[in-house]
Amino acid sequence: MVLERLQQVASHLAGHTNPSNPFDPLSTEEIAAAVAIVRQSHPDVFFNTVTLWEPRKEEMMRYVASPETVPRPHRIADVVAIGRGSKVFDGTVDLIEGKIVTWDLTEGVQPLITMEDLQIVETVVRKDAKVIEQCGIVGIPPQDMHKVYCDPWTIGYDERFGSGVRLQQALMYYRPHIDDSQYTYPLDFCPIYNSDTQEIVHIDIPKVRRPLNTAPPTNYHAEAIKAAGGFRTDLKPINISQPEGVSFTVDGRTVKWQNWSCHVGFNYREGIVLSNVTFNDKGTVRPIFWRISLAEMVVPYGNPERPHHRKHAFDLGEYGGGYMTNSLSLGCDCKGAIHYLDAAFVSRNGDPQTIKNAICIHEEDAGILFKHTDFRDNSTTVTRARKLLISQIFTAANYEYCVYWILHQDGTIQLEIKLTGILNTYALNPGESAAPWGTEVYPGVNAHNHQHLFCLRVDPNIDGPNNTISIVDAVAAEAPVGSEENFYGNAFYAKKTKVETMKEGMSDYDGASSRTWEMANEGKINAYSKKPVGYKLVSREVPKLLPKEGSLVWKRAGFARHAVHVTKYSDEQIHPAGRHVPQTSGEPSQGLPAWIAADPEGSLVNTDVVLWHTFGLTHFPAPEDYPVMPAEPMTVLLRPRGFFTENPAMDVPPSYSSTPSQVAAKKQGLTGVVDSLSRLAFGGTAEKGGSKDA
Amino acid sequence: MVLERLQQVASHLAGHTNPSNPFDPLSTEEIAAAVAIVRQSHPDVFFNTVTLWEPRKEEMMRYVASPETVPRPHRIADVVAIGRGSKVFDGTVDLIEGKIVTWDLTEGVQPLITMEDLQIVETVVRKDAKVIEQCGIVGIPPQDMHKVYCDPWTIGYDERFGSGVRLQQALMYYRPHIDDSQYTYPLDFCPIYNSDTQEIVHIDIPKVRRPLNTAPPTNYHAEAIKAAGGFRTDLKPINISQPEGVSFTVDGRTVKWQNWSCHVGFNYREGIVLSNVTFNDKGTVRPIFWRISLAEMVVPYGNPERPHHRKHAFDLGEYGGGYMTNSLSLGCDCKGAIHYLDAAFVSRNGDPQTIKNAICIHEEDAGILFKHTDFRDNSTTVTRARKLLISQIFTAANYEYCVYWILHQDGTIQLEIKLTGILNTYALNPGESAAPWGTEVYPGVNAHNHQHLFCLRVDPNIDGPNNTISIVDAVAAEAPVGSEENFYGNAFYAKKTKVETMKEGMSDYDGASSRTWEMANEGKINAYSKKPVGYKLVSREVPKLLPKEGSLVWKRAGFARHAVHVTKYSDEQIHPAGRHVPQTSGEPSQGLPAWIAADPEGSLVNTDVVLWHTFGLTHFPAPEDYPVMPAEPMTVLLRPRGFFTENPAMDVPPSYSSTPSQVAAKKQGLTGVVDSLSRLAFGGTAEKGGSKDA
Repeated sequence: MVLERLQQVASHLAGHTNPSNPFDPLSTEEIAAAVAIVRQSHPDVFFNTVTLWEPRKEEMMRYVASPETVPRPHRIADVVAIGRGSKVFDGTVDLIEGKIVTWDLTEGVQPLITMEDLQIVETVVRKDAKVIEQCGIVGIPPQDMHKVYCDPWTIGYDERFGSGVRLQQALMYYRPHIDDSQYTYPLDFCPIYNSDTQEIVHIDIPKVRRPLNTAPPTNYHAEAIKAAGGFRTDLKPINISQPEGVSFTVDGRTVKWQNWSCHVGFNYREGIVLSNVTFNDKGTVRPIFWRISLAEMVVPYGNPERPHHRKHAFDLGEYGGGYMTNSLSLGCDCKGAIHYLDAAFVSRNGDPQTIKNAICIHEEDAGILFKHTDFRDNSTTVTRARKLLISQIFTAANYEYCVYWILHQDGTIQLEIKLTGILNTYALNPGESAAPWGTEVYPGVNAHNHQHLFCLRVDPNIDGPNNTISIVDAVAAEAPVGSEENFYGNAFYAKKTKVETMKEGMSDYDGASSRTWEMANEGKINAYSKKPVGYKLVSREVPKLLPKEGSLVWKRAGFARHAVHVTKYSDEQIHPAGRHVPQTSGEPSQGLPAWIAADPEGSLVNTDVVLWHTFGLTHFPAPEDYPVMPAEPMTVLLRPRGFFTENPAMDVPPSYSSTPSQVAAKKQGLTGVVDSLSRLAFGGTAEKGGSKDA
Repeated sequence: MVLERLQQVASHLAGHTNPSNPFDPLSTEEIAAAVAIVRQSHPDVFFNTVTLWEPRKEEMMRYVASPETVPRPHRIADVVAIGRGSKVFDGTVDLIEGKIVTWDLTEGVQPLITMEDLQIVETVVRKDAKVIEQCGIVGIPPQDMHKVYCDPWTIGYDERFGSGVRLQQALMYYRPHIDDSQYTYPLDFCPIYNSDTQEIVHIDIPKVRRPLNTAPPTNYHAEAIKAAGGFRTDLKPINISQPEGVSFTVDGRTVKWQNWSCHVGFNYREGIVLSNVTFNDKGTVRPIFWRISLAEMVVPYGNPERPHHRKHAFDLGEYGGGYMTNSLSLGCDCKGAIHYLDAAFVSRNGDPQTIKNAICIHEEDAGILFKHTDFRDNSTTVTRARKLLISQIFTAANYEYCVYWILHQDGTIQLEIKLTGILNTYALNPGESAAPWGTEVYPGVNAHNHQHLFCLRVDPNIDGPNNTISIVDAVAAEAPVGSEENFYGNAFYAKKTKVETMKEGMSDYDGASSRTWEMANEGKINAYSKKPVGYKLVSREVPKLLPKEGSLVWKRAGFARHAVHVTKYSDEQIHPAGRHVPQTSGEPSQGLPAWIAADPEGSLVNTDVVLWHTFGLTHFPAPEDYPVMPAEPMTVLLRPRGFFTENPAMDVPPSYSSTPSQVAAKKQGLTGVVDSLSRLAFGGTAEKGGSKDA
């Protein structure tokens, strides 16, 4: 039965029917096949991860260049399994050959915590005698234990327990009613849960006790708002529709839109992965990025009181941005004409699982793309922009992260992240001040200061894999005011500092010089600018990592020490805080610091490099963020600068265009290519103007 | 006849019919009345400006608080007129009393250059013998002078000519054909034009001559793209409509939307002005800003070669962001259901002029407002955001500035500016390098480095006019790693530095500390956070002024020396580079530096203050920006932080909301309040998911 199944899959994968793109995530069939193959030799393991072991870059680049002649890379599964006694196995399984390729017992690490791992903790907590005792101390009687909830987090790192035992910390809450937000009722103690034995092994109890909050509930769900007086009724619908359909095509998971093409991958950890991103430059398909993804993040909290120092979630490396992704809904998460892609994962017991509508792909109007009016005669061209959004939303316990990869017609790729959801909260006694490490956002509710630091991994492929990174600063000329070279003192220029080595690549943000980082191909010169073709990383929300040098977070989240790191490409280097993140001590630091330390002086010039960018924001909570946070957006841009020889969006039809000669001849220009539906808000005609008094 | 007219206007203004709001711009009738009144005593002047002399704040605050009992402030016109011999008069005219209040001859200044002032220069240039001679030198024969164009700029400041004579510099171009972009054919010399005598008084000729560019034209208008192969045809329409109308109301020029209310003013200079901005906080109308506007800007270019140092346009103070504003078109500049407001100005000869559709007011969908999913049961609330945009676009010769004042439901006010239009260009010889002060964006076309620095004037009224400004930095705790106060090194907090004096208010941006500026009312404490209620200025695009200290630009554009200045409120202080900007030498610096120097140590605590914020970007041109620039957006936010006691947008109906108890009972939550029109891109149903392979 298993063998028959394997043969079916192998036959399918060998390309006889609907061969998948080697970048494609593993399908449910492939996950099942991988599990079956593993089970033949390791019948008793539980599965943590079964995901695509991505094709090696060199092999894949050859294949992409000539898919008809180069053999298709094998489909290989990357497997993390957990055996008895918390043993961790890292393996790879060749799905074409139907066999295990590698299978290693990895000691001293803990793979990420899955949703299944999380779900069970609350049940255990409610039954634990010591937890029940602590609940009694803060004012919850034993018969109300069903009103006790917990958000289980990885323990981060706690030196008392080390890395050998798989642990979670349970952030405790209470709900007066099942529909009340528990974040108004944080409990002051923190049980520690052993995932292997499924029991509470310790409870962290603060010196100062904080009894259960007595403030009334504050909720934002519809029933609560209706009960409190109802919603506003003056919001008229805005209808967005595409009666002729969408302007993009999807072939498998390859999306083509305007001049763009890219493969939309997805995995348990990074979520969306864009591969082989190219732009059709007047008939020439030019590679730009080999692979871009959100590779890691960390959310350090700023309260030094134990055990809050353990609150510094690596939401991707410790939980998985894919595993936590939402199933999206038409008209709620995105409006218009939507194409969804599902996501397939493995369950603990090896069954394939599907999250429907995990990825949303849709177009949006994006305002003015360009406009110019000649002041002499009012001849005008105005063209509206369109953007393509490839998005997902994941829920990390209290928070949600809405991730939008946005392609623009002008060659820009934007990563926009919106933060919403609910603040992580802690108990506060009456009269106690939350300052300076937090804010009282509601009576008795202390929301701690925190940062959201994301690590964007960019594998540039700017007209080929051999690229060079430069740090670019806007600086004044050195020559003083009054000198012949700079008499009026107005000279300034873009100072470029080439990143020659990994050591030099560790660079910080400079807001005053509007610092950017350039990714250029020195082997290809722009015909007009006479400089190497390139893209720039433009990012303006780049706070310093606030946990101090040498701190626990600084050690564990090495990627966050600098705004940019640059490494020489390696197939093995995807995860900047390491492959297995939970319970890492940071001694030594995994991921980026280790890779850089291995060859700090190796040349990075004109070779295959990867740029890692840490950006984000520092959040000092305010009452406005509670009981649910209005979405706060932040943006990173990858902009063509000297990549094209002209504005690459001039092929977009204008809304209106007239030339001076048309104006002179009183001839109509080109009108209404895009929109003839717009109307005046209060009647009348466009010619008359919209003023009520007109 | 004049008197009769005056009586009509006075009667109208006295409030018998449709009394205007004292914040309203002057109507065409009022402009005509002001001109008629001036002409009675000064029959021979030309008009530069007739605009609203805004009611004094103290008087107007009293009136706003009790319009039924407090007398309506008089309608007063602020007049700038030019007499024979370039004499400049500044006057005020009381339109209710029908008389001139003040009338002063102002010596040594030049008022701004109007569109009429600009339009005439090209005609003069084409006929000037010396210009014709220079055209011949660069390769344009006399019979082609009709193909010669110029963008007239104010001269900025040129010490050879001083401030006594009203001058413009003519940036010269050529068009092979009337419809070709002249910016591909910049001429290398620069005539200087005397506005008073209407003649060319000098020509700046570079040492190195640069003959007319021989490259073929490059154009972006529709006829050119059609001729070059046509537009892409795969862009399907996105329809945006509001079948039930808009969600805002307009009473005169007072706009109410969601919980917001504000008056939308407009003047020749700042363009849009928002006054008396309030938010209805659960029935209590709370003042937030008394007045916000873009008050000034400067665009310094970074090429030190004479006379390029003169290229540093103060587009608002030297030309007027209102005077240069576009008449907007439905479906082109904005889509959906639009309300337009017109703008009225005076012409040189005193006639009222109207720009139809100068201001666009419309709503847009704004993605997710907030969302949270409980990972236990997938109970979810997701609410979509709406925003209200109040916008204008102005054309400053080659560039366009699209200015969007955006109100958000969560209490945030966003100022978004999009830069588009065409680069200012200069000639470049074959083989000559444009670096380091510019970029060759097309053969023979040198686009110089430049900055766009905008000055946002914010007159806060945070629950009243007496406010205090603080500088807020995100910083690590001082206590070292390993100390008892910060054992794990993760402590960080918001360090607030109160601005006690104007001297202390001169503060720079710090990207590493994510610096913000808080405007707070120390007399009103947030019930939850226990801190003064406040708003924060959040701005991330804040380059340093790159012209050096002591440079011409540094002297003239004092407002751009620091990211923030704070001043004590004065009715007279609206224009941070001075009332009359053209041909100011900066010795002494006008505007902000002068006001601060007058009382650097005066207390700013808990009093009526104004915050001035300079932000923008440094633009190193690239070929992608040519022949027309894709719009580049930048954003400044004014965010409530501790102003409200909870998320103020919870009254917005959700797209979907379910509670845990509804999920447990398998009951439907609240669905589809906002949108039921969204569809799958490629058919199928939402339940099935959108995958082609599903």
